[in-house]
Amino acid sequence: MSDPFEQLREHMAALADLKNVAQLLDWDQQTMMPPRGAVARAETVATVQRISHEMFVSDETGRLIEAAATHLNGVSHDSDNASLLRVTGRQWDKARRVPARLAADLARASSVGHQAWVQARASSDFAGFVPYLERNIELVREYIDCFDDFDCAYDVLLDDYEPGGRTSDVARLFDELKAELRPLIAVVEQHHDRVDDSPLYGDFPVDRQRELVIWLLEQMGFDRSAWRIDDAVHPFATGFSNHDIRITTRWDESFLSTSLYGAMHECGHGLYEEGIAQSLQRTPLGHAESLALHESQSRLWENMVGRGRPFCGVLAPRIGSLFSSGLDADTLYRAVNRVAPSLIRVEADEVTYGLHIIVRFELEQELVEGRLAIRDLPEAWNARYKEYLGVEVPDDAHGVLQDVHWAAGLIGYFPTYALGNLIAGQLFARAHEQLPDLDAQLGAGELHGLREWLRENVHRHGAKFSTSELLDRVVGGPIAVRPFVDYLKAKLSQVYEVELR
Amino acid sequence: MSDPFEQLREHMAALADLKNVAQLLDWDQQTMMPPRGAVARAETVATVQRISHEMFVSDETGRLIEAAATHLNGVSHDSDNASLLRVTGRQWDKARRVPARLAADLARASSVGHQAWVQARASSDFAGFVPYLERNIELVREYIDCFDDFDCAYDVLLDDYEPGGRTSDVARLFDELKAELRPLIAVVEQHHDRVDDSPLYGDFPVDRQRELVIWLLEQMGFDRSAWRIDDAVHPFATGFSNHDIRITTRWDESFLSTSLYGAMHECGHGLYEEGIAQSLQRTPLGHAESLALHESQSRLWENMVGRGRPFCGVLAPRIGSLFSSGLDADTLYRAVNRVAPSLIRVEADEVTYGLHIIVRFELEQELVEGRLAIRDLPEAWNARYKEYLGVEVPDDAHGVLQDVHWAAGLIGYFPTYALGNLIAGQLFARAHEQLPDLDAQLGAGELHGLREWLRENVHRHGAKFSTSELLDRVVGGPIAVRPFVDYLKAKLSQVYEVELR
Repeated sequence: MSDPFEQLREHMAALADLKNVAQLLDWDQQTMMPPRGAVARAETVATVQRISHEMFVSDETGRLIEAAATHLNGVSHDSDNASLLRVTGRQWDKARRVPARLAADLARASSVGHQAWVQARASSDFAGFVPYLERNIELVREYIDCFDDFDCAYDVLLDDYEPGGRTSDVARLFDELKAELRPLIAVVEQHHDRVDDSPLYGDFPVDRQRELVIWLLEQMGFDRSAWRIDDAVHPFATGFSNHDIRITTRWDESFLSTSLYGAMHECGHGLYEEGIAQSLQRTPLGHAESLALHESQSRLWENMVGRGRPFCGVLAPRIGSLFSSGLDADTLYRAVNRVAPSLIRVEADEVTYGLHIIVRFELEQELVEGRLAIRDLPEAWNARYKEYLGVEVPDDAHGVLQDVHWAAGLIGYFPTYALGNLIAGQLFARAHEQLPDLDAQLGAGELHGLREWLRENVHRHGAKFSTSELLDRVVGGPIAVRPFVDYLKAKLSQVYEVELR
Repeated sequence: MSDPFEQLREHMAALADLKNVAQLLDWDQQTMMPPRGAVARAETVATVQRISHEMFVSDETGRLIEAAATHLNGVSHDSDNASLLRVTGRQWDKARRVPARLAADLARASSVGHQAWVQARASSDFAGFVPYLERNIELVREYIDCFDDFDCAYDVLLDDYEPGGRTSDVARLFDELKAELRPLIAVVEQHHDRVDDSPLYGDFPVDRQRELVIWLLEQMGFDRSAWRIDDAVHPFATGFSNHDIRITTRWDESFLSTSLYGAMHECGHGLYEEGIAQSLQRTPLGHAESLALHESQSRLWENMVGRGRPFCGVLAPRIGSLFSSGLDADTLYRAVNRVAPSLIRVEADEVTYGLHIIVRFELEQELVEGRLAIRDLPEAWNARYKEYLGVEVPDDAHGVLQDVHWAAGLIGYFPTYALGNLIAGQLFARAHEQLPDLDAQLGAGELHGLREWLRENVHRHGAKFSTSELLDRVVGGPIAVRPFVDYLKAKLSQVYEVELR
């Protein structure tokens, strides 16, 4: 008889392959598929999901997990095999509680809701969207009812995007973050005239932007033998193995940040997928599982490197010569770090971004727990934006209808964005401790030192460790607010020339 | 209880979805995938193939076929349901003899072999390619050994690409064809100075070629809402539904025919997939099954329309103005119909093309039957080219390594190309009988009349009918050499201004 771990690996390899298939179907749909292909594509996606679900929740998976578990004696917690067993067991325990009928209903409602949202947002029609949101919330509650071993309803959802994450921990972190961000924003708002972001607006031909972006990505590690970059309406990154990384971007002829920082963001995600160890490929550990860790990589590259003073010294002359603008490093640095409370999450600056997330985190808990009625959601949304960000929401398209997540049934996903910022702050601080000349490297345009540090400390482990296990290894503690806030204060005191405690 | 035909349809719909997945994986590999993605892709392809195979050969499929068969009374042979049952039953009988392990090995070896071939052809390295070809031949022999109800080994393979095709019939047709072609070639070679193809060579910027090709495809029915065209090393066409058609082409800056006729060829394939009836989508009848019929469509459009005198009257002024060459119709007509024995199949003229196929048909039988050793293949190839086409093969890149088929394990495939030419001759003759003003339409650049005739008589049926059933319906008899040869003689007597019996 062959090694039970080998048998488990072989079984799970087929499921990893099907996951890649699902990701290719999605990548193709978003980048390549002609529009009329959508109807057949939906059927194909549904079939792959169904087959994959049936294979995973089968008794055979359970038997293989059990057989491997009996051979666990002496296998180190940190080993690939122990991690494989841990992660597979946890996923299986969760998946098998969900009836196939409910899984299918969730998938169907997600697809239907997504379509309805496109219409509703276009016409700012929340009322027309209510039945779809009601259906999603109803199914999400049914999903929650499949579980009895979580502390609260929202924990069930959060765990799907941030394995092991707890609502109470997130709430504590977000309370602390909110308490830090609001006074920060108040101070910089008093000095809003000190920062001018007009150099980012103008006339930027797409072919020149493309040249800039490709050069930038190549500095980060983009390599045509293992990567692609394509256009997409809603940019994303995906990977079908550590040697097949696909990122996407979009281009705005009148605003440079869209392509420039969008591409750095997605490349940050791509580097994570590329850096996962060869030994973890075709296992459940071969893709990063924590969306917070994933987002920490994209935000670290986009904001901490891309919007940092050292690398602005590399970017500015390139932008200046490509677009004949004579842009200098300090002007770019200030422009890309302007803080201004606004309505739309995906356009928010680094500082106010967290508040956009906190609004959603609070409201989606209230919806799931029935403390907020769906019909009252726009009013609650607008009030919360007024309270936290000081902005008036003019209509639902610029308010509660702006994101696709709830429409697609993705409830519990939003917090991972803000957690990613916090983790990025922790990792960037730790990288500076371990690479004392990091700023000098970044200022010289040398990005490989940081990339290799992240690869060694984060990427290569794939989904072997929970977020808290990984952070314990790298920074010696759990997710924390302090490093991110310290980073923001240091940056803002330079950009806005103010004293920040 | 629901209708047993409905149950069979539902079961087979999931398999049709998996077939689309396999085709997307292949399309992506040939057009989009970064090269280093190949290793993981081969595993993914193998897994999909294995799962699909297991689902199809399951006892459940057998039960559903049996249940539907008991309800067949009174269902017409030509109906969708009777055809579904007939085709599914035949495929099931064949597939269930093949172990899942072998199906996966074949798929994996195909993907790996394809990638190895790209390298081998680039460096004309047959020796480096030998292990991959050995593996493919070994697996093909294992595959053949799964069957005992075919007349000969090669019938097993041929049947995969041309269902119901028999080696003895093909050999008889090819003997007749060879006997017709060789004297034809001898005659036109005596008059080789009468035809000048130099107008096709020169400096043709790719962006202009692209403009020409897109215009041409749009005349044929290409529509961006349901089609794509991309670049590929070895052009092909595929479709994931009748509303998602993908064709590919390549560009040669110094030779116009590559893109122009290549694109018409692939668009001919695409029109077939697009024309298959909606009622057959997501069934085993939803993709054309006979590659000979498929090839008849591509060759009919490429050669009989695209290289025909009427449509040359439309093409020539366009080419002339795009490339400022002042090309006239008769000059183009002669140039694109020049006959000259050559080394490369895909660049061969319509007359010598058949001989390229006959070489392959003969050699692959010898390989499979063990009458020819793989190490002796280049020598045998070169000798056969010398004998049939009178040309010296300078290196393996221009010889035995020129095609991807054997590298991808596609043995038994080649004859369908030449059979496609024969069928195209039969269909084009019949279309002229039923559309008396067809030449006038083509001469006016109106291609929809022919397209709709093909849709009505061929495309919409998908895989409902065998090639001989379909030809019986449309031309009243089996595959025949005569109409194709008559067509060639008529054309050559114009182009070469010779009398041909």
